Formats: sequence, C-alpha cells, structure tokens
Amino acid sequence: MTTRIWTAALAVIGDEILSGRTQDKNVAQIAAWLNVQGIRLVEVRIVPDKTEAIVEAVNALRARNDYLFTTGGIGPTHDDITVDAIAEALGVGVVHHPQAVAVLEKYYETRGGVTDARLRMARVPEGAGLIENRYSGAPGIRIANVFIMAGVPHITAGMLDALTGTIEGGAPVQSRTIGCWVAESEVADLLGAVERAHEGVAIGSYPFFREGKTGANFVVRSTDAAQADACIADLTARLEADGRSVVAGGI
Amino acid sequence: MTTRIWTAALAVIGDEILSGRTQDKNVAQIAAWLNVQGIRLVEVRIVPDKTEAIVEAVNALRARNDYLFTTGGIGPTHDDITVDAIAEALGVGVVHHPQAVAVLEKYYETRGGVTDARLRMARVPEGAGLIENRYSGAPGIRIANVFIMAGVPHITAGMLDALTGTIEGGAPVQSRTIGCWVAESEVADLLGAVERAHEGVAIGSYPFFREGKTGANFVVRSTDAAQADACIADLTARLEADGRSVVAGGI
Repeated sequence: MTTRIWTAALAVIGDEILSGRTQDKNVAQIAAWLNVQGIRLVEVRIVPDKTEAIVEAVNALRARNDYLFTTGGIGPTHDDITVDAIAEALGVGVVHHPQAVAVLEKYYETRGGVTDARLRMARVPEGAGLIENRYSGAPGIRIANVFIMAGVPHITAGMLDALTGTIEGGAPVQSRTIGCWVAESEVADLLGAVERAHEGVAIGSYPFFREGKTGANFVVRSTDAAQADACIADLTARLEADGRSVVAGGI
Repeated sequence: MTTRIWTAALAVIGDEILSGRTQDKNVAQIAAWLNVQGIRLVEVRIVPDKTEAIVEAVNALRARNDYLFTTGGIGPTHDDITVDAIAEALGVGVVHHPQAVAVLEKYYETRGGVTDARLRMARVPEGAGLIENRYSGAPGIRIANVFIMAGVPHITAGMLDALTGTIEGGAPVQSRTIGCWVAESEVADLLGAVERAHEGVAIGSYPFFREGKTGANFVVRSTDAAQADACIADLTARLEADGRSVVAGGI
C-alpha cells in the first residue's frame, strides 16, 4: 500500500517580515496545525507587498501542492493588496462578498459603522468562500485550493480553528524525540546507519549548547507510527550500546 | 540620480522549520543585518532537507539577486546536505578545503580529535572561500554570490559579524515609526494619500490589540533619510489634524 501524501505550501506576504521588523510566527503555527490535519508543509516563500511577487509565488505554489495558504495583507489599508494579487494570479475579478459585507456591518455597528476602507475587507476574488474570523470581523477567504489568512498570528490561529477538520489530509507525520549530551559529530555515523536501516523514516539531528555542554536532540519522523517507534527504539539501543545516556522525549 | 538597489534572497534549509518543531530566527536577524549593509532582503524560501528542493531554490534565487544567503544543513550528520546540493546547483564538485580542515583539526584537538564525520564540515563546493565561525569550529562558506551559513542562530550571528563590512551594498533603508491608538481602518484613506504624496516612500500599517484597545504602528521606509523624515512629519501632522494623538517611535 502506498500512502498518498498531502502537501501544502505557505506564502507569507509582508514587507515587515522581510525588513526584520516583525518576527514571523505563522510558519510554525500553520506547520503544526497542518501536521495534525495530515498535511505536510513542504515549502514556504516570504514575499514583499508587491503584486508581481505575490502572483509569482501563488501561481508556483498552488500548482504543485494540494493546498496553498497565505498570510498577511488582507486588512483595510493601501498596503493590503493580497486579495487583488491573488485574484490576478487566478485570472478572476474582485467582488464584495455579501456575507462578508454583512459580517463587517454587524461588527462595526457599535464601532463607528462601516466605511469604504472597512468595506475593503469584504473584497474577495470572484467565486471565493469565507473563513470565519471570531476576533476582528474581517473574514479569511478560500478560493479553489488557496486559503487566504490574516497576518496577525492570533487572528490566523482563530481562522485555523475554524478550518480544523474541514480539509482532507492523509496520515499525520509521527515524530519521536530523544536527547543526548553528545556532540552530534560523535554519533553521525550511527545516525546515518540507523536511518538507512529504517525505510520510510527520516532522522533529524538538532545540536545545542546549554549549561556549558554540547548536546543534540534526534527526531525520528514517519507517517507510520510503528515504524517511528521501531526506529527510535533501535536508535536508543545503539546509542546506549555506544555508551551514551539517552533522555526520552528530548532535552 | 537613480540609486542602485542591492538585493538579497535567503534560503532557509531544514525539515525542523517546516515541521513547526523549530521557530526560525534567522530570517529576522539576517534581514536586519542586511539592511545595515545597505542590502534589501526581497525574498525568502524555506525548503526541506531534499537535494532537488535546495537546488531549485538556490538556482532561482541566486540568478535574480545580488546575493543569496542560506542557513542550515552544514553540520556533520547525514541530514546535512546543503554543501552537496549547492555544489550540484552550481555545477561544481565538492572538495575538502585545506584551511577548513586545519581549523577543525585545531578545534577538535582538545575535543576528541577529527573524525570522518567531523571532516564532513570541511567539505565545500570547489572554488569556495570560508566565513569565520568563532563559536564551533566549522566555518561558513562563500562561493560566487552565495553565502552558506549555519542553522543555529547564534552561530549564524557570529558569521554575520565576520562578514560585516565585506559585502558591497547601497544606501540602507531608513525607517521611521509612529504609533496611534486608532483602528487602522479609520485612517486608511489618510495613509494612502500620504504615501501617494511622497514618492520613493512606502508606508506600512501594523495593527495590534493591547490593554483592551486597538492601535496601529505606521512605518515609513525609504532609502532617502530626508524623504523619510518629510513623510513621517507629514503623516504625523495629518493624523493630529484628524484629532489623533501620535506617539513618536511607535507604541
């Protein structure tokens, strides 16, 4: 049996990430959420608030992945051009979504009313559906295999909650971690040998330096839980046979 | 006078970033460092530890930017394939760099000696030079316009220090920030009008929600300090004329 692997890409849109002003948090949170859905994040591009850069990334990434997520650029101001750029990438027009207009009218009823700027947040590529935003009114957008999310991480988190369980995926990647107070270079051959002995399993080695000592965490990843268990058991046994003390769960 | 804009791209290489296990910190630190060098980070791609993905990203990004930086995948273990993948992208072989061998021999003299695994960290694409690593022996690598850096952020920081002032750039982007306790949608038109009135200046709007209140920071960016100053002064004046209280430097 071959297992179908479901893949996603993410386009992070925003000058503030590329300038170093803002530390991105959406890559990690979307990656972790996707894994629970059984979808593997296989590529991320961070692009500026420029139409041609967004169009290029969107078209490259949506074509070769099951899903494309984007974050950023869906607010009310002049630098929020994501909707227009994605519509251009898809070759469709931009319309006001009636349900989004209704959501915004309700949200701003007690907040000064809807203005032209606020109505910008109801604009969607023609044919799109909405993703609920429980925090700040303006919804996310789904069109074809593209999911257009907010840039502000807690708003994105709410949109991910709204999407949970609604997108088809496969088997989630299982990961098992152990830690060892060892320089990874001392066990490099051992790691490679264990990985070669376990098909369908990847081992990552993540060194660190803490409390004046060198250590590393080793992460075994597989879509098959039994294979992941077998591999981590083998790796632990070989490290211990090599005289290393192993910390289950990582250090 | 037209000002030459120097651009860089960054390829972040690592399954641990795409799995959500590790929060990337290199994008922000490299972006900030590049700006001081007068180089603009215009695109980032995060790719897995897979040769074909690295080759594709490296070749796309190095061709259309003045510089390409990579982070990750230069350690001693089997999942460290960056050097081989970049050599393949450049169409050159992989050799042991004599100076890197000497550095590693010295570093490991009191740490158990050089092993085959450790010698992997002296492998470079043929024709490459080294970037000093003051922390952990294994150097970074420069070949043509490609700079191959560590994945561990503090080691990358040391390599950036070693490169400071050695790479040609242009005028750094100047940024000026003000903050306002206002929903960005209330001043969206004003922001757009100010940006249109100041050529060569971009204004970013970054909303937040703190202490139960909505606010936004507005960041003016330009390579011309005088233009940035004029724009932030104009923006401040128009916000104040609109009855807003402006916090210099941002909130």
